[in-house]
Amino acid sequence: MTDKISIVGAGLVGSLLGISLKQKGFNVTLFEKRKDPRKTEKYKGRSINLALSRRGILALQSVNIFDKIEPLLIPMTGRMVHDVKGRLTFQPYGKEGQCINSVSRGRLNEILIEELEKSGVNLNFDHQCETVDIENSTLGFLNGKKEKSDVIFGADGAFSIIRKHLQQSDRFNFSQHYIDHGYKELDMTPLNGDFAMEPNSLHIWPRGNFMLIALPNQDKTFTCTLFFPFEGATSFHSLMNENGILSFFERYFPDVLPLIPDVAEQYQKNLTSSLVTIKSCPWYKNRTLILGDASHAIVPFYGQGMNAGFEDVRLFTELAEKMNWEWQKILPAFSSIRKQDTDAISELALNNFIEMRCHVGKTDFLKRKELEAKLQDAYPKDWIPLYSMVTFSDLSYAEALRLGKIQQKVLDEFLYEKSENLDFEKIVDRFNTLKKAG
Amino acid sequence: MTDKISIVGAGLVGSLLGISLKQKGFNVTLFEKRKDPRKTEKYKGRSINLALSRRGILALQSVNIFDKIEPLLIPMTGRMVHDVKGRLTFQPYGKEGQCINSVSRGRLNEILIEELEKSGVNLNFDHQCETVDIENSTLGFLNGKKEKSDVIFGADGAFSIIRKHLQQSDRFNFSQHYIDHGYKELDMTPLNGDFAMEPNSLHIWPRGNFMLIALPNQDKTFTCTLFFPFEGATSFHSLMNENGILSFFERYFPDVLPLIPDVAEQYQKNLTSSLVTIKSCPWYKNRTLILGDASHAIVPFYGQGMNAGFEDVRLFTELAEKMNWEWQKILPAFSSIRKQDTDAISELALNNFIEMRCHVGKTDFLKRKELEAKLQDAYPKDWIPLYSMVTFSDLSYAEALRLGKIQQKVLDEFLYEKSENLDFEKIVDRFNTLKKAG
Repeated sequence: MTDKISIVGAGLVGSLLGISLKQKGFNVTLFEKRKDPRKTEKYKGRSINLALSRRGILALQSVNIFDKIEPLLIPMTGRMVHDVKGRLTFQPYGKEGQCINSVSRGRLNEILIEELEKSGVNLNFDHQCETVDIENSTLGFLNGKKEKSDVIFGADGAFSIIRKHLQQSDRFNFSQHYIDHGYKELDMTPLNGDFAMEPNSLHIWPRGNFMLIALPNQDKTFTCTLFFPFEGATSFHSLMNENGILSFFERYFPDVLPLIPDVAEQYQKNLTSSLVTIKSCPWYKNRTLILGDASHAIVPFYGQGMNAGFEDVRLFTELAEKMNWEWQKILPAFSSIRKQDTDAISELALNNFIEMRCHVGKTDFLKRKELEAKLQDAYPKDWIPLYSMVTFSDLSYAEALRLGKIQQKVLDEFLYEKSENLDFEKIVDRFNTLKKAG
Repeated sequence: MTDKISIVGAGLVGSLLGISLKQKGFNVTLFEKRKDPRKTEKYKGRSINLALSRRGILALQSVNIFDKIEPLLIPMTGRMVHDVKGRLTFQPYGKEGQCINSVSRGRLNEILIEELEKSGVNLNFDHQCETVDIENSTLGFLNGKKEKSDVIFGADGAFSIIRKHLQQSDRFNFSQHYIDHGYKELDMTPLNGDFAMEPNSLHIWPRGNFMLIALPNQDKTFTCTLFFPFEGATSFHSLMNENGILSFFERYFPDVLPLIPDVAEQYQKNLTSSLVTIKSCPWYKNRTLILGDASHAIVPFYGQGMNAGFEDVRLFTELAEKMNWEWQKILPAFSSIRKQDTDAISELALNNFIEMRCHVGKTDFLKRKELEAKLQDAYPKDWIPLYSMVTFSDLSYAEALRLGKIQQKVLDEFLYEKSENLDFEKIVDRFNTLKKAG
């Protein structure tokens, strides 16, 4: 177990992987292009809060550091849907006690890096990786350093340098697909020293082709995110000047306007970012493997990007242990097994955008949710709603997607009959029959 | 019309584009990384013969050079299907007089380059493009040269450098997908001074998961191409040594073995190449546009790669003329209109591989082909088989794909009834109804 392991990227996934492999006794070195985030004034980077759920928690627990993370979390037990008149509807995410957790990306990353350091991993910030010699497992850095390893992991995010080098090899499948929407973050400060809205919810303002959401932060602010088309009649492109922005918020988000009085200024100042889905296959060549966003970046609408990346680390470590750390077998096996799951969550995340921006405010959607909750109450082992399979279980994403499609089909069949008294037993029987049929 | 135009790539598409734009009066410069093919001993590059059909011919006619190309062509009027016992079945591609044309990529390219030179285009061989400054429409070359232009065209093939630079800009959608099969070319020499097989056919040996095809060359040789899985029980990976190769050919291609006595030697010596589908969107940024394989490489199974690239040139020129050569309008318009067609031929080409290697030898397929031919005879304006729409017409690929799917659906419906006497009028009526429904 004295193999020398290099990990490129000390973001969330790279850091957790470093901790996990160090615990298994390997000689682990991390390289990160940015400076040590603990020494820079404020974390600057992508979206500043994330939703940690079951899969992420399991991965953190598997390396015994969840207790360090737990104090950072703000539980969100459901969606708080805001209609255009500012009226609220609360939709619980799951059963009593089930929640997702708002957490600051920056603080989470800092704690992981502290754990890395404590565990004795070699940490190299300010190391921009530029080349990967995949044949010889050797990294080259902007500062001229070369580093040969037994195994290289690329956890360097959606625009991975390691993946770019894999991409140059023959028969590497790759896609990057941008959706028509971008996003812009807006800060909502506390009101009279407290959260300006109910803190234990994920707030959504569904508006059809666009939406606003808000997640709570520990400093009693909310981070609001506007998901909005880049082009079109109502879009980032069309909405530019102060008056336009204010009347847009007045029309669509009237309850938000008093809580973000400087919304026009923030809108004009803050970046507009794009949203990409990245797929690749295979994730490895020789002794180099990419994981996390580097191999499967997804859109954020299921709150599963980080959770999927953390689950990569847990599943990789478990598989490697089972395969006696024979790298040449583990890398292909992990790549082919795990890809089915990340393809599934990728599809689910895209679908959930439509659910969030269009459906969550609609009666049909609420009725179906209610029916599913009742089915789950009556048959808790047989009927677990899709959202719960994805968010509150560790069932593989691929199986969750498969079962979710069957559920949809079965509900479509029974609701089509419009019977007032639905026979729950029949519904569950039908579901179980289709489930077994594969 | 004194705009300075740079084209990267003097392959088939870049050369034809150069000729077309020069004829419109522009100041055209071509850059090609290879040496002048007329001065090198033998054309070395990708597959050496191609099938020119209606769309390619129309494009060559639109710049009045088809008469220079015509003498190179060997017409192929149908498929000659070889079964495992060497028995032959001939399947005409279309009606009397309709054919596709085997042509040497190398010779075709040379003639296009001669035409370029005659027309006064600036030709620069040995110019490897390395960078594109898309903001300033400036190309940078390995030899240090910089070239600023009013418009840049990237016709530099499936691994386009121009596309790589577009790919770095935000919101550029891109995919490269390799199929599980690769290909290897094998030469069949003349027999007693003549073609060893019927020359006016495209020969196919369909064998389920793999196939061999052969196209005639003007020197009375055939170029055979084995399309074969990379991995698996019967694959490039499993088939390596001389005995294995010989017994494989004996078993699957017994009639070929005597015609290629050195097949094992050729198999071991010749390259195995991969097959990729490339999609991208948008094809332009500022005043840089990619076209041909650079924006939409497809697999070769419909014989449409070159034809689609040539059609790009014709349609681009026609559109630009219609739009008064306002580049800022033409580039986005062409990119969005034409992409639907190239996505369609991309799908058709993938589907046709299955048709060629699995279906062409089967009775059901032949019966359906026969039925379609009868339908076309009875209703020549209403029922044009998909292969003919793609190969012998200039109907947009997207519309051909759409109509082909309707035809399939209608035939499925009627054949399901298994009636002995099919009512042609009913079939055509049903087709026309669905066609109009959109």
